[in-house]
Amino acid sequence: MNRRGLVAAGAAGAALAAPRLAAAQQPVMWRCPGSFPKSTDVLWGVQEIIARRVAELTGGAFQIRIFAAGEIVPALQVLDAVGAGTVECGYTAAYYYIGKDPSLGFGTVMPFGMNARQHLAWIHQGGGRELMEEVYRDQGVVTIPCSNTGAQMGGWLRKEVRSVEDLKGLKFRIAGLAGTVLTKLGVIAQQLGAADIYPALERGVVDGAEWVGPHDDEKLGLNRVAPYYYYPGWWEPCSQGEIMVNTRAWEALPKAYQQALEVACAESQVWSTSRYDMLNVAALRRMVGAGTQLRGYPRDVLQACYKATQDTYAEMGERNPRFRRVHAGWDRFRRDTQAWFRVAEDSSANFLALVERG
Amino acid sequence: MNRRGLVAAGAAGAALAAPRLAAAQQPVMWRCPGSFPKSTDVLWGVQEIIARRVAELTGGAFQIRIFAAGEIVPALQVLDAVGAGTVECGYTAAYYYIGKDPSLGFGTVMPFGMNARQHLAWIHQGGGRELMEEVYRDQGVVTIPCSNTGAQMGGWLRKEVRSVEDLKGLKFRIAGLAGTVLTKLGVIAQQLGAADIYPALERGVVDGAEWVGPHDDEKLGLNRVAPYYYYPGWWEPCSQGEIMVNTRAWEALPKAYQQALEVACAESQVWSTSRYDMLNVAALRRMVGAGTQLRGYPRDVLQACYKATQDTYAEMGERNPRFRRVHAGWDRFRRDTQAWFRVAEDSSANFLALVERG
Repeated sequence: MNRRGLVAAGAAGAALAAPRLAAAQQPVMWRCPGSFPKSTDVLWGVQEIIARRVAELTGGAFQIRIFAAGEIVPALQVLDAVGAGTVECGYTAAYYYIGKDPSLGFGTVMPFGMNARQHLAWIHQGGGRELMEEVYRDQGVVTIPCSNTGAQMGGWLRKEVRSVEDLKGLKFRIAGLAGTVLTKLGVIAQQLGAADIYPALERGVVDGAEWVGPHDDEKLGLNRVAPYYYYPGWWEPCSQGEIMVNTRAWEALPKAYQQALEVACAESQVWSTSRYDMLNVAALRRMVGAGTQLRGYPRDVLQACYKATQDTYAEMGERNPRFRRVHAGWDRFRRDTQAWFRVAEDSSANFLALVERG
Repeated sequence: MNRRGLVAAGAAGAALAAPRLAAAQQPVMWRCPGSFPKSTDVLWGVQEIIARRVAELTGGAFQIRIFAAGEIVPALQVLDAVGAGTVECGYTAAYYYIGKDPSLGFGTVMPFGMNARQHLAWIHQGGGRELMEEVYRDQGVVTIPCSNTGAQMGGWLRKEVRSVEDLKGLKFRIAGLAGTVLTKLGVIAQQLGAADIYPALERGVVDGAEWVGPHDDEKLGLNRVAPYYYYPGWWEPCSQGEIMVNTRAWEALPKAYQQALEVACAESQVWSTSRYDMLNVAALRRMVGAGTQLRGYPRDVLQACYKATQDTYAEMGERNPRFRRVHAGWDRFRRDTQAWFRVAEDSSANFLALVERG
């Protein structure tokens, strides 16, 4: 091996190293509550990966103590705690907080929105970060994308949904904006925490329920209390998780530690989606093998949901200029990008489906 | 903000920091030649991002000097130079070296293979890394995935391809294994460097040529010398770039620097695909606006290419047990994962195509 370059660079390298090492000696300990229980092992794993990498990259000087949902902060109050400075950072999904500002939903996913890759392209390269900065700033946080589940499933149903008519009066566990959309179609949308979904579906308190996808749904046992597993989860074509950092804590953090946190989040971004992509395959096979019936939502149902979604966006935009502005940028990027994906990405996938589906 | 945790953790944090800081003071300078010219600005940007981040994360102690194709190593000899230890690392695509070992192709992409996300899931979670370790070890390198272009286009043609018959005698610039596949169908496959593609297509030395996708193809000016732009690039449903590191250099690298390189590669992985996803949209729109005719390869052409590809895999597997073993693991993961993508990912995309294509 040629080491001439190394020898020549010794002096310069050491000189460059000095200022940063001084910063690296400053110990910092942060707390990071998450919105997810340890049983959603991939999402819990995201917190573990980030905390471990940040410590490694800073020689153990920047320590992040991680907590599962409810340990020190309730699952759906992570943004509140971070924004108020009760904790320095947290791991959550912005769409849990659309009650504070509906534009927060664009940080995670929106109904009939973008897939995981398209969402990242929007955030990192398509103006998304710039549009969302103001939204997050008002909450007192800076955010770093760090995980994605990929497209989610359309939920479990005790009876088949054959037409738009079947939605009327359907009691369905679903969170967030999609509940508002489905209400337009006669669905009785219900919010239930993870632990309450199984018993509610088993006892018929709800007729159906959505959670995440095969891997997480199997863990809740939903396949044992409903026979029909629907797709697609049009309300979550991806689900982007973020590390949210209190703005003042971020500004006080040494630059080298900011960088360590940023790259650790990029790593968990790649890891989480790969992990879900692998685990979902096996879980779906097991459930289908044990009797689960896969069903696609009928086209007329999807069309009605699509229309109700666009109506909802329009109504929200009329009431809320910020929502209208963020939606406009998001929707333009989405349409352009999806048109491009149809050319090179989707045409490949659809040809393979044709020739290999058998 | 609550800083109680910070104060309590001071002593422990400093103690943990000590051993790693000793390592961080060791200056290391590596050289990193790439296989791409600076004109492929995203791929060049990958090298820039990795070198900058690694320096930042190590307080300037680990410096990677980057070089474009041909500056210190010819574009398609990066693996050779890294394996021999002439340089410590390089940025390239493993499939350029299938002449050494056809299994190297699986490190980048294979015809009718996986998309960018599926490829990463295979490498990181689906047994791909384990299968490929032996392949890379024989070349004297350790690899870290660090970029992906996404699905590529099917190339530029001076005349339309309407049937399998039209492939006979067609002179087409295409690299690697896809050339072998197309030869079975009568195509005269030619390898040409980036700079030679435009003049060859302009003067009719070739009837068609593939390069990357809209952004990079537009830069070469291919839209000015051929009217038809085909999709999909079935030979490259993604294209994974890697940092290859000389095995002994990797083993001699302080652990903290290995970690810095790994996370910098995760960051460029996310950045590169997002960047391509954004730039390709604008480039395709400009070219179509200026007269480029988009064409999908006819179904019978794709079916013939698919069959010729499977035949090629079978023949290579008969001659080469390692290829057979890697292909078997790769193909099993591919089929399983693509079947799952059809359920939740592709059904979402295809519904939007139906309702929004107009």
